[in-house]
Amino acid sequence: MEPHDIQAILFDTFGSVVDWRGSLIRELSAWGGGRGISADWAALVDAWRGAYAPSMQRVRSGELPWTNLDALQRGSIARLAPLHGISGLSEADLDDLTLAWRRLDPWPDSVAGLTRLRARYVIGPLSNGNVALLVNMAKRAGLPWDMVFATELFRHYKPDPETYLGACALLGLPPSRVMMAAAHNYDLHAARALGLRTCFFARPTEYGPHQKIDFAADSDWDIVATDIGDVARQLGC
Amino acid sequence: MEPHDIQAILFDTFGSVVDWRGSLIRELSAWGGGRGISADWAALVDAWRGAYAPSMQRVRSGELPWTNLDALQRGSIARLAPLHGISGLSEADLDDLTLAWRRLDPWPDSVAGLTRLRARYVIGPLSNGNVALLVNMAKRAGLPWDMVFATELFRHYKPDPETYLGACALLGLPPSRVMMAAAHNYDLHAARALGLRTCFFARPTEYGPHQKIDFAADSDWDIVATDIGDVARQLGC
Repeated sequence: MEPHDIQAILFDTFGSVVDWRGSLIRELSAWGGGRGISADWAALVDAWRGAYAPSMQRVRSGELPWTNLDALQRGSIARLAPLHGISGLSEADLDDLTLAWRRLDPWPDSVAGLTRLRARYVIGPLSNGNVALLVNMAKRAGLPWDMVFATELFRHYKPDPETYLGACALLGLPPSRVMMAAAHNYDLHAARALGLRTCFFARPTEYGPHQKIDFAADSDWDIVATDIGDVARQLGC
Repeated sequence: MEPHDIQAILFDTFGSVVDWRGSLIRELSAWGGGRGISADWAALVDAWRGAYAPSMQRVRSGELPWTNLDALQRGSIARLAPLHGISGLSEADLDDLTLAWRRLDPWPDSVAGLTRLRARYVIGPLSNGNVALLVNMAKRAGLPWDMVFATELFRHYKPDPETYLGACALLGLPPSRVMMAAAHNYDLHAARALGLRTCFFARPTEYGPHQKIDFAADSDWDIVATDIGDVARQLGC
């Protein structure tokens, strides 16, 4: 693969571009502190993230009709908070907690690396986050996306093929001109099976002490980098 | 209406943010010059733009299945070029000419005005251009969109209600928190009927010597401005 074969790069976002765990622990701790609520916020965040894939799977399997990520996450925190000793949450509280997902910080290399890549390529997230979440997160974090490819646009969640192929179709590009970049091998396996190019960089602290996978590339991805700055370097940006 | 009532501003793009006529005359003249083809390029551009609304109407009426703007414009130029003395165009020529729509220049106030508005509001086009066209145009022209709301995302063309309401839904906002901004009164009538806020600024040279309408606001829009810089000023940005 030559750098000029690629015209667009799609980035997984949660964990790959932004640090959801550290950011959510901070946000929920501050939210609780402001209300005199104490809890094991890290445990609640880990449980919330643990509910993420199963909640999307209920949509992917057809058990639930299309439901965007904000709504899934809101349902999950409503169920999980009482199990972590936080009861009596109002509808407004649930809204506040759900909006914490818009305030995730980028990893230290993300903004500079994306800015370099943007000079040559069309870049965007291809994320299971919904449009409102991703747009507001990008605005706060300074993520310089050209376009926000929320999988909500396709009413499918990754790794459904409709998401990867939907983004390529909107870009007007064949999959071979589009690269999926992620810190998660599963995402790249799905993208490669559809003909997209692939780029891996590890985020070994994404899950804090609970990380079990994705410490390294598990296949011969087109690019294997240390972070997004290194992706830019390898592509000559 | 107070400025803080609004959270997002959607901009009509062709004619409102970018100068399609001047840019296309320049692009087609250069294309012809490089091939030794002479023609009345302004007349061809005006005819091409004349075919724009009727081609979308064929989709809106159901006569054609969903067809994005690149494909409609390509069909129109293929039909119109021979009528303007340009024959024997190859498939690659038709692609080249269609891509000229990605190289439209912004009006002089657009980038600075949008940049000021972006500091406070989520901004994006709500345009009948397709995603690939709008993303590549924004990248070249430096339009600082937070999100690109091509009506292609909804498989409807403006002024179908699905386009305005679809953008509000993706933003997670009620129409009353979203403002449609355009140099075309028809667009604002459609948006207001659905509950969006409205903002007009005239582009009296959009159609060159052929402009017949939209020299002024024809209703009491929430904001009536002289250009996008004046929109920013009136909103205190």
